[in-house]
Amino acid sequence: MSDNSIGEKLKVTVFGQSHAPGIGAVIEGYPSGRQIDWDQVSAFMARRAPGQNAWSTTRKEADAPQILSGLNEKGETCGAPICALIENQNTRSKDYSSLLHTPRPGHADYAAYLKYGESWDVRGGGQFSGRLTAPICFAGALCMQLLKEKGIEISAHIARIGSIQDDRPDCLDPAMPLYPADRFPVINPEKGEAMKAEIEAARQKGDSVGGAIRCVVTGVPGGLGGPMFGGLEGRLSLGLFGIPAVKAVEFGDGLAAASGHGSEFNDSFCAEDGKIGTRTNHQGGIQGGISNGMPLHFTVYFKPTPSIACAQRSVYLPTGEEKELIIQGRHDPCVVPRAVPVVEAMAAMILTDMILQGA
Amino acid sequence: MSDNSIGEKLKVTVFGQSHAPGIGAVIEGYPSGRQIDWDQVSAFMARRAPGQNAWSTTRKEADAPQILSGLNEKGETCGAPICALIENQNTRSKDYSSLLHTPRPGHADYAAYLKYGESWDVRGGGQFSGRLTAPICFAGALCMQLLKEKGIEISAHIARIGSIQDDRPDCLDPAMPLYPADRFPVINPEKGEAMKAEIEAARQKGDSVGGAIRCVVTGVPGGLGGPMFGGLEGRLSLGLFGIPAVKAVEFGDGLAAASGHGSEFNDSFCAEDGKIGTRTNHQGGIQGGISNGMPLHFTVYFKPTPSIACAQRSVYLPTGEEKELIIQGRHDPCVVPRAVPVVEAMAAMILTDMILQGA
Amino acid sequence: MSDNSIGEKLKVTVFGQSHAPGIGAVIEGYPSGRQIDWDQVSAFMARRAPGQNAWSTTRKEADAPQILSGLNEKGETCGAPICALIENQNTRSKDYSSLLHTPRPGHADYAAYLKYGESWDVRGGGQFSGRLTAPICFAGALCMQLLKEKGIEISAHIARIGSIQDDRPDCLDPAMPLYPADRFPVINPEKGEAMKAEIEAARQKGDSVGGAIRCVVTGVPGGLGGPMFGGLEGRLSLGLFGIPAVKAVEFGDGLAAASGHGSEFNDSFCAEDGKIGTRTNHQGGIQGGISNGMPLHFTVYFKPTPSIACAQRSVYLPTGEEKELIIQGRHDPCVVPRAVPVVEAMAAMILTDMILQGA
Amino acid sequence: MSDNSIGEKLKVTVFGQSHAPGIGAVIEGYPSGRQIDWDQVSAFMARRAPGQNAWSTTRKEADAPQILSGLNEKGETCGAPICALIENQNTRSKDYSSLLHTPRPGHADYAAYLKYGESWDVRGGGQFSGRLTAPICFAGALCMQLLKEKGIEISAHIARIGSIQDDRPDCLDPAMPLYPADRFPVINPEKGEAMKAEIEAARQKGDSVGGAIRCVVTGVPGGLGGPMFGGLEGRLSLGLFGIPAVKAVEFGDGLAAASGHGSEFNDSFCAEDGKIGTRTNHQGGIQGGISNGMPLHFTVYFKPTPSIACAQRSVYLPTGEEKELIIQGRHDPCVVPRAVPVVEAMAAMILTDMILQGA
Repeated sequence: MSDNSIGEKLKVTVFGQSHAPGIGAVIEGYPSGRQIDWDQVSAFMARRAPGQNAWSTTRKEADAPQILSGLNEKGETCGAPICALIENQNTRSKDYSSLLHTPRPGHADYAAYLKYGESWDVRGGGQFSGRLTAPICFAGALCMQLLKEKGIEISAHIARIGSIQDDRPDCLDPAMPLYPADRFPVINPEKGEAMKAEIEAARQKGDSVGGAIRCVVTGVPGGLGGPMFGGLEGRLSLGLFGIPAVKAVEFGDGLAAASGHGSEFNDSFCAEDGKIGTRTNHQGGIQGGISNGMPLHFTVYFKPTPSIACAQRSVYLPTGEEKELIIQGRHDPCVVPRAVPVVEAMAAMILTDMILQGA
Repeated sequence: MSDNSIGEKLKVTVFGQSHAPGIGAVIEGYPSGRQIDWDQVSAFMARRAPGQNAWSTTRKEADAPQILSGLNEKGETCGAPICALIENQNTRSKDYSSLLHTPRPGHADYAAYLKYGESWDVRGGGQFSGRLTAPICFAGALCMQLLKEKGIEISAHIARIGSIQDDRPDCLDPAMPLYPADRFPVINPEKGEAMKAEIEAARQKGDSVGGAIRCVVTGVPGGLGGPMFGGLEGRLSLGLFGIPAVKAVEFGDGLAAASGHGSEFNDSFCAEDGKIGTRTNHQGGIQGGISNGMPLHFTVYFKPTPSIACAQRSVYLPTGEEKELIIQGRHDPCVVPRAVPVVEAMAAMILTDMILQGA
Repeated sequence: MSDNSIGEKLKVTVFGQSHAPGIGAVIEGYPSGRQIDWDQVSAFMARRAPGQNAWSTTRKEADAPQILSGLNEKGETCGAPICALIENQNTRSKDYSSLLHTPRPGHADYAAYLKYGESWDVRGGGQFSGRLTAPICFAGALCMQLLKEKGIEISAHIARIGSIQDDRPDCLDPAMPLYPADRFPVINPEKGEAMKAEIEAARQKGDSVGGAIRCVVTGVPGGLGGPMFGGLEGRLSLGLFGIPAVKAVEFGDGLAAASGHGSEFNDSFCAEDGKIGTRTNHQGGIQGGISNGMPLHFTVYFKPTPSIACAQRSVYLPTGEEKELIIQGRHDPCVVPRAVPVVEAMAAMILTDMILQGA
Repeated sequence: MSDNSIGEKLKVTVFGQSHAPGIGAVIEGYPSGRQIDWDQVSAFMARRAPGQNAWSTTRKEADAPQILSGLNEKGETCGAPICALIENQNTRSKDYSSLLHTPRPGHADYAAYLKYGESWDVRGGGQFSGRLTAPICFAGALCMQLLKEKGIEISAHIARIGSIQDDRPDCLDPAMPLYPADRFPVINPEKGEAMKAEIEAARQKGDSVGGAIRCVVTGVPGGLGGPMFGGLEGRLSLGLFGIPAVKAVEFGDGLAAASGHGSEFNDSFCAEDGKIGTRTNHQGGIQGGISNGMPLHFTVYFKPTPSIACAQRSVYLPTGEEKELIIQGRHDPCVVPRAVPVVEAMAAMILTDMILQGA
């Protein structure tokens, strides 16, 4: 268990801080002999990139990763670790200088100070920055290419923004049409518009808003996972809680099930053309920690971005006195839309690792 | 990562099946030179034990663990792994014989069959049985004695049974009075009675009901945890999802935060007598994956017990034909009350490991 | 990395002390659906058991393991962890009472005291006792049954006792005849007699003698292992150094190679009937940490048993004063013969883990 | 366990291939708030660098690492992973093009082909290149600065080149003068000259020669390590066998002990001024896998460089036919002198990890 790396057979180590020379990832265990589809990687990473629309921060980034290792002279993966580096540019360090001593409510600032002391890299949130999800998207994009070969597809949609909830997918059909892999994927476009309005309203008030992302994985073979600490729920959530601002993870209809009865939530088995499945999928495709051959589905809940424009109370650490804090700069009023590919990427990393290790 | 063991510096390996000769745990890394308070261990384990009241199965168990190793001749811990064995008794194997071929909806049966084939031990749920939480309570009880020395106290209450929700603790006071460590701990006794009625109603219908457990940990030093994959949320949830029937885990007010705004959910800092804290605790004492010195709080959601008396649809695996299944025997209509000490124990194991490894 | 467990996909956790109620092992990850050949397990463990001849301690043990978990009602492995318990009997605790304060030279006593304090279990060497190799033999015997299915055979012989060196096997033939799996396996029986004489000579002087064990593994598929920290040499030696008294590990002709030239030690490739091999096997079947399809061979060096009858100098820890120490009781003058199956078992555990995880 | 990363609390992940754009390391878990002495790092890395004298390859390298992450704006470590990148230059790819199909005897070529298929990066040895020890020296140099604060010093000397053996240090004095940390450290300068002559003789014949490095660590506190799989010997050797060409590792006088008697090799305890030690140090400062407060000492054995100029037999893989192979280019006739700082660095990494995790 490590702060910055995850996985055993497919292992991803993330490095970098928001304002360091660079951020990146080292991917160990990726099979040799693959030609990566780099256009697909770029397209996937672009879904996370900022600065392209009304819902996200205006900081521009050239997030094209340089591949430092892991490819042979033909450009195939060679079995050695793949190291990808994204150089940091456009880093306005001056914006952040005072935050070391006056931690922002809701941010990692104060906890980081308690852990690392005064030396933690406060610039742009340092290693706690959402920017560190770019290397995760890189690693996830590579994993998705492996999974696709095995018939496994991952797609997530925005399940909630503030008070607006998207429709529920049925999660029964292994060939379920994917949500549009765009920058605001929803099932019900009208709900999508209402969500955008909710984000815009938050922005205009200098406020932020939370939300949720539901992820569906089709094609997962039965028998993946294990009892107790090797269960799909625990392994996936170890990764998913690694995404900044995630505060809850639900598998299947876990929350509704907690308020309901067994007679409603047990998924009856059915058989069609020799294929066994379930008539409903309240369990999210997982029983006893193990996949049952139905699509996996889970929901990841994000708190509102802590960076808001209104005055907040904090403490000036050198003296221990309370003071008012006003956060300067422009910030995402909602991280959820940009986090959709991050959720997909994290799921891809975890599932690839489990499949490669025969879990 | 392993199906049956968790932890690095304090590592717990659970073994056994419901109807094997025994179940138990091996605890590595427990500090030497401690006299365990065995009465406290027994009292803690008794909170999980079945058969004592109206809400739980009538199977009687003598769950007194035998300590096979790890103690010196004075009975102190000696630094060697502590192995505790609980022998299985009163195992009526005949009840379960037909289930191998006709999996029970909502149970691990079918997924276990996909993973292990026909050889999986179906008797009493095998290694998926809730009975395996007894060794977890044993290990957790030992950990709680270490944590208590460091001023850390863990207490959980029943936050929900079906439609009935308990009151919310404020989670601000490090010296918060503990809930009664009894077999049905709630904050509001009236809600407790309504919950018991809900369970009783489910029983009478041969149905089952879900629920939730909220756990509060006071005295956690600031700076525990880490960014990304070493965060408190991910590490705790890896363990918590190891408890049978858990389908969602929420930290702080994670679900409400996902529907709300930053201006409501950011926890302002305050300072009193040189001690820095927050005025609210929506973050659950965790920021950026790291403890901030406030009490931790999180909620674990349980689906209803899948064992219900009414007829359900299943498939007869040898022929692939659908058939009706009626589950015999008496079962807990709700696992939540017995799971309260299990949640506490799991949190104790994870936090002890993190503290011992300086995480 | 843990003191008492090893492996990832096939993970073995050893528990117990010499004079605790029991010792044993928990084996996680053993495939389901196997009928273990228990006679073979017993025969293998008997090779390690003491008390049967002139070279070993007279302590009698009934080392028959009880299987507490991991089998279904037909006695097949079921996918759950296999826990085996060996109860300790015939433990004469009184022999050891004074050693806590006057550590024996060459033993773990003083180092254990530094690590665990006065509470370490000094009786019979506690968790440092050679007796803990019995559960390792149990686990190894189970692994060997898996390996045999894949055509992998492991056999070790006594390569040296004191000044007497056994002949060298050629390690080229994948179908190499195994050494007699008896209690004193050697290639050259005359050397074997000389070795026994060396042990007997040491015994008569109240002294002890060191030695070495060479292990050959045939049938290992090419491509197992990896560069750097995943190499076969490192992974095997992590286990082999876990055997008490091991102080050096050599792969292939590593020691001779360090004194020689590349022109002598490079193994030329050859091809016969489409099968590629090497004409010599100085590398021990491993290049760049990875198996090359030739038999593996490695040698494990054991120091002499530290328990000797002559007077030695030690320190009385409570006062810090030097004093003379005379160790009572009867002890093995040489651990090497009994360690042969332990070396095989450890190799079996490591290789099984690597194969199951696709290393 | 991973091919490219090692450690738990202080974790080093090495990436790169000889002819990839770069090589480097990510170091997780390095404490925050340190100012690294970069001059010392450079001086240490220079001891490994090639091209400076008669014993090593003439390939010139600008091995100055760029620090991509892990430092705050003051240049202090900030708690985030430290990523160091060394760009590859002066890579003459053409030298290596035919080797993919005709593996070099003694090299990793054939084993790598078996593991990774035709896609493995054969250029310059790919990820098996000795060049990958540069990032290890970087990581080790940083660790040594931490260890030095705790009074721990690591120094290695060339114990053997071919038939010439250096004198033996006594390994008793915790304040033992270090060997000259130069590029050919020996205890006895006359032996050093003879060793250089041995290397030069090998070079002139187009041959190569093996050797050994002894490493001494002073100041290690007693009680570090553990029984069985957590022992200092196993943990150190897991790292040491990760150094290319290492084929044996010996702790203390392990080899001599295997040929001798307990009465000679047990280290008697002594006490002086309240400090307990041993009169001899045959155990290498380790008993039962745990440090006893005496200096650690161990010896690492290297096979001769497999690259030699004389004609060798190999197989042309596409047809499976034997053929003669002549390796072009200039190569180190002996890797041992350049490996001295690598052994020190590896020991520093392992010991730092153990100390930080309280092993």
